[in-house]
Amino acid sequence: MAVRVAVDAMGGDHAPGEVISGAIRAVRQADGDLKVLLYGPEPKLRAVLAAHEPDPRISVVHAPDVIGMGEVPVAAVRAKPRSSIHLGLRGHRAGAADAFLSAGNTGAVVAASLFLLKRLSGAKRPSIPSFFPTTAGACILLDVGSNMDSRPEHLVQFARMGSAYARIMAEIEQPRVALLNVGEEPAKGNELVRKAHEMLTAAQDINFVGNVEGQDILHHRAEVIVCDGFVGNVVLKLVESIGTALPRMAEQELDRLEADPAARRVLSRIFKRLRRRFNPADYGGGAPLLGVDGEVFILHGRSSADAVERCIQLAARAARLNLNAAIKEAIAL
Amino acid sequence: MAVRVAVDAMGGDHAPGEVISGAIRAVRQADGDLKVLLYGPEPKLRAVLAAHEPDPRISVVHAPDVIGMGEVPVAAVRAKPRSSIHLGLRGHRAGAADAFLSAGNTGAVVAASLFLLKRLSGAKRPSIPSFFPTTAGACILLDVGSNMDSRPEHLVQFARMGSAYARIMAEIEQPRVALLNVGEEPAKGNELVRKAHEMLTAAQDINFVGNVEGQDILHHRAEVIVCDGFVGNVVLKLVESIGTALPRMAEQELDRLEADPAARRVLSRIFKRLRRRFNPADYGGGAPLLGVDGEVFILHGRSSADAVERCIQLAARAARLNLNAAIKEAIAL
Repeated sequence: MAVRVAVDAMGGDHAPGEVISGAIRAVRQADGDLKVLLYGPEPKLRAVLAAHEPDPRISVVHAPDVIGMGEVPVAAVRAKPRSSIHLGLRGHRAGAADAFLSAGNTGAVVAASLFLLKRLSGAKRPSIPSFFPTTAGACILLDVGSNMDSRPEHLVQFARMGSAYARIMAEIEQPRVALLNVGEEPAKGNELVRKAHEMLTAAQDINFVGNVEGQDILHHRAEVIVCDGFVGNVVLKLVESIGTALPRMAEQELDRLEADPAARRVLSRIFKRLRRRFNPADYGGGAPLLGVDGEVFILHGRSSADAVERCIQLAARAARLNLNAAIKEAIAL
Repeated sequence: MAVRVAVDAMGGDHAPGEVISGAIRAVRQADGDLKVLLYGPEPKLRAVLAAHEPDPRISVVHAPDVIGMGEVPVAAVRAKPRSSIHLGLRGHRAGAADAFLSAGNTGAVVAASLFLLKRLSGAKRPSIPSFFPTTAGACILLDVGSNMDSRPEHLVQFARMGSAYARIMAEIEQPRVALLNVGEEPAKGNELVRKAHEMLTAAQDINFVGNVEGQDILHHRAEVIVCDGFVGNVVLKLVESIGTALPRMAEQELDRLEADPAARRVLSRIFKRLRRRFNPADYGGGAPLLGVDGEVFILHGRSSADAVERCIQLAARAARLNLNAAIKEAIAL
């Protein structure tokens, strides 16, 4: 049976154009049967779709309201029950779609998901994890944006959800879990991480390997790294920017060295590949909102069609593997 | 007249060997007259010094106790008044040295500085800024480690101290100041940054340009970026690790491309230069503790002789330019 993904067609800085292009590519490139339901103001979406070949696997569901990127999440969610975010999530809840994704206002997606899908039993705070490129492949960092003022018990639950995510989606049997801190010693850091260190050490079901620091993220010291959402979001975006900033710095060095054209060509090929490695559209393409009762995926506001396509594939894969059930089991411990 | 720098010879993972080598290089490479006073257990320091050419610009001051990297700062500072950190700071306070630096337990250096040198009048929290390599040169991030649980008014003061630091040490007339956040909009982020955004917008003396996100750090959107010390410390160490992680990733790509030896040689030269750009020993070499009444510099625990040398030069330059007086004036506003 086809997997059906509900997509907030109005979410993100380049919506609806890039979102719709991404959806079309996703159904064409999909491994299995895939259908996409686009949520947004129907006339607007139809106008954009008119520029593409019609595809029966793409359908439109009318949602007249849009929640803007700058709106205060909770207020916007209360004021606009007919937004593309609300109606897409309602579609998922009602079983019309197996997953939902949005590149819109992250806070609004989190608030609306909590309101409409509810938390999983025992879930303290939902969390957004993300895959990171490392020298040895990839690691998972969470939370990267949904939790702005976390408590220690939240970080412990992030550890459990992150472990389950790594097991299901990255097929790692016993993921190592580390706590992001400012030093290796247990006494280092702020109140939050000192207490979290104690609790993680005591948790028998978590393969906790201790604190890691900023420099350990790219050097792959653990498969799962936990932190509060503010720190994780800054780290996520900083890591993503390496792929664009480094080639510029390398070019400056090439100019200083007065390197020849042949060398420049090789370097430009290398950096193209590195850029791809650091581009969220390639190394993961969005992230799930773990801890709500559903398969909800969140993308960067700046997402391109490429990023949207990848995230739709990721959401479809999560729905097929029943990620939500694995998370439910992990936090019931 | 010679500038005299007091150095905690027992601070850091590679102390006293690397610290002493760095001190010797510093006096030999100095632009002007420079003297270094090494604080630590005299027999131990003499034994290390015996392997080097004697230099009259290096002297030893006996400090029998050592505060370890893993000790709880405040307790260690109370228990060991004869540590190299205490006696070095006392030397600076008494006028025997114009600056003090340590690669030891950062928390202990901060606590001992507050205790012995006192805060500057009006200083809420001392802060450690750091220079960062960017696509357009460098920017200053603060705080990067001394403040684990900041309040909004602390971030405002970091903005003032960072501006003064950029003006004096980087010679930038009107530095742009940004707030590190998870989105550009004023409503984004945790409680701390939402309130700080309001206060920074209202402050007439700060050239505040709004929020920046993780990806803006390397892309140089501002000369001064403010954040709390936990976030700043993670960012600092992550950025530093780019210089070591990226060459490894680039090599993996070279292997996949089966690149020829000539291309590898050029790439290795480029990465050597980039590594230097990201190496704290080259782009800054430690950072001052702003807001205490003195010229105190703090280095990474893992600092090499090279990093120690740079930091001694930086401390000497700050003492010559009277950085502390400029900070005092900025926060008196």
